[in-house]
Amino acid sequence: MTNETIVTAAMLAIGDELLSGRTKDKNIGHLADLLLMSGIDLKEVRIVADDEDAIVAALNALRPAYDYVFTSGGIGPTHDDITADAIAKAFGVPCEHDALAMQLMGEMYQRRGMEFTEARQRMARMPVGAAHIANPVSTAPGFVIGNVYVMAGVPQVFQAMLDNVIPTLRVGTRMLSTAIACPFGEGDIGTPLAAIQKSHPETSIGSYPRYVGQSFSTEIVVRARAQAPMEAAAEEVRAMIEAIRIAKTKENHSAET
Amino acid sequence: MTNETIVTAAMLAIGDELLSGRTKDKNIGHLADLLLMSGIDLKEVRIVADDEDAIVAALNALRPAYDYVFTSGGIGPTHDDITADAIAKAFGVPCEHDALAMQLMGEMYQRRGMEFTEARQRMARMPVGAAHIANPVSTAPGFVIGNVYVMAGVPQVFQAMLDNVIPTLRVGTRMLSTAIACPFGEGDIGTPLAAIQKSHPETSIGSYPRYVGQSFSTEIVVRARAQAPMEAAAEEVRAMIEAIRIAKTKENHSAET
Repeated sequence: MTNETIVTAAMLAIGDELLSGRTKDKNIGHLADLLLMSGIDLKEVRIVADDEDAIVAALNALRPAYDYVFTSGGIGPTHDDITADAIAKAFGVPCEHDALAMQLMGEMYQRRGMEFTEARQRMARMPVGAAHIANPVSTAPGFVIGNVYVMAGVPQVFQAMLDNVIPTLRVGTRMLSTAIACPFGEGDIGTPLAAIQKSHPETSIGSYPRYVGQSFSTEIVVRARAQAPMEAAAEEVRAMIEAIRIAKTKENHSAET
Repeated sequence: MTNETIVTAAMLAIGDELLSGRTKDKNIGHLADLLLMSGIDLKEVRIVADDEDAIVAALNALRPAYDYVFTSGGIGPTHDDITADAIAKAFGVPCEHDALAMQLMGEMYQRRGMEFTEARQRMARMPVGAAHIANPVSTAPGFVIGNVYVMAGVPQVFQAMLDNVIPTLRVGTRMLSTAIACPFGEGDIGTPLAAIQKSHPETSIGSYPRYVGQSFSTEIVVRARAQAPMEAAAEEVRAMIEAIRIAKTKENHSAET
């Protein structure tokens, strides 16, 4: 019996450039960090091309499966920015120039002495019924419709939009975690660590191998939604590392003598 | 009429650490780069947790949809490494200790004077019927079953395994690309660029905004599977940029005089 609340999320990153390797995504890791801190569990990420069918299919698979879906990319002024249309299609509503977005952007371009071109007006298009996500960097808003938050792909703009979104979300019991550096590889710790995991089912223990120089070491991370069980499991992990250290020291001594 | 060959791929990156932000994925971008160079179109990426149901569902969605599926992560010796079992389940075959893998790894640990623990033996488990993917870094092999290539998550090992896989794959007509630096934002180029795209349907023209300091600039990338149409579209893009430059210079001059 616990009174934990779990809130889940998925991300859909949109853009040919992510799949061609031209752009190395920076938004997934940033969203993952912020959701973890906020108490929302990121459960799945998908990356798809600027392709309407692919976007619609991914979105309609993700939005009923998770509490929130966050998208990045494809809401700019060029012909390859088709996200707003694809989201509208997924929701079965028209995609139209939003009056408030037109006004905000029109004023901004006027202040800057720039023409509010047809291409720029494309950035004011959104599914009918969507609400704005403010964009303090470059004005053109993202939008939210249903449980889907549609944001820019440029990392500075994505992050600024996300900062406006996070405080409005329902959050769950935050996942706590503690990381323990382990000088031994996973082959040494695998069996005892599995036993610790088994005796602490209320925690989730992950081990992350690192390969530096010629050998593996590990970072062991104990996660739980409450402090006490996390500390208890972490204590056993530390004891396990110490026991392996002692055993290895003895081995070396007997080899030398 | 063309005689282009298209070969498609998807990636499934597996690991809680990717969704918690603890590890920023490096394998997706690397795979994307290599596939592009090789002539294989990466069409979709999914990231899921170390969760059997999630892995099975994603794999069984991806493997009939694309020519190849590449997975990363979750094939180590610890309890949270469940990829081999999940892949076996997706294919409906048992997951067993592979005799050749047991022999290779047994010999390696003997050479190094290390115990071939039960945990280490876990890394020799693979779906019945799978073939090895050699691992020159740390011996424990990845494996291929059907059209699914199962590789480690540690980037050095993933990359070494992939180097062994790529030469064995069927490839398509390579996608050529040329990148053109554009000092203007997408709002300036959106309309003329859409017209160029429309008149060059055999190319795929992408524009990638960058936000540096206080203003946007763009990288315009023209892609095609043959040189001539790519060059023709690129030439029009360069002419478009020059026309915008001249128009802006005139504007500034008339403002000053």
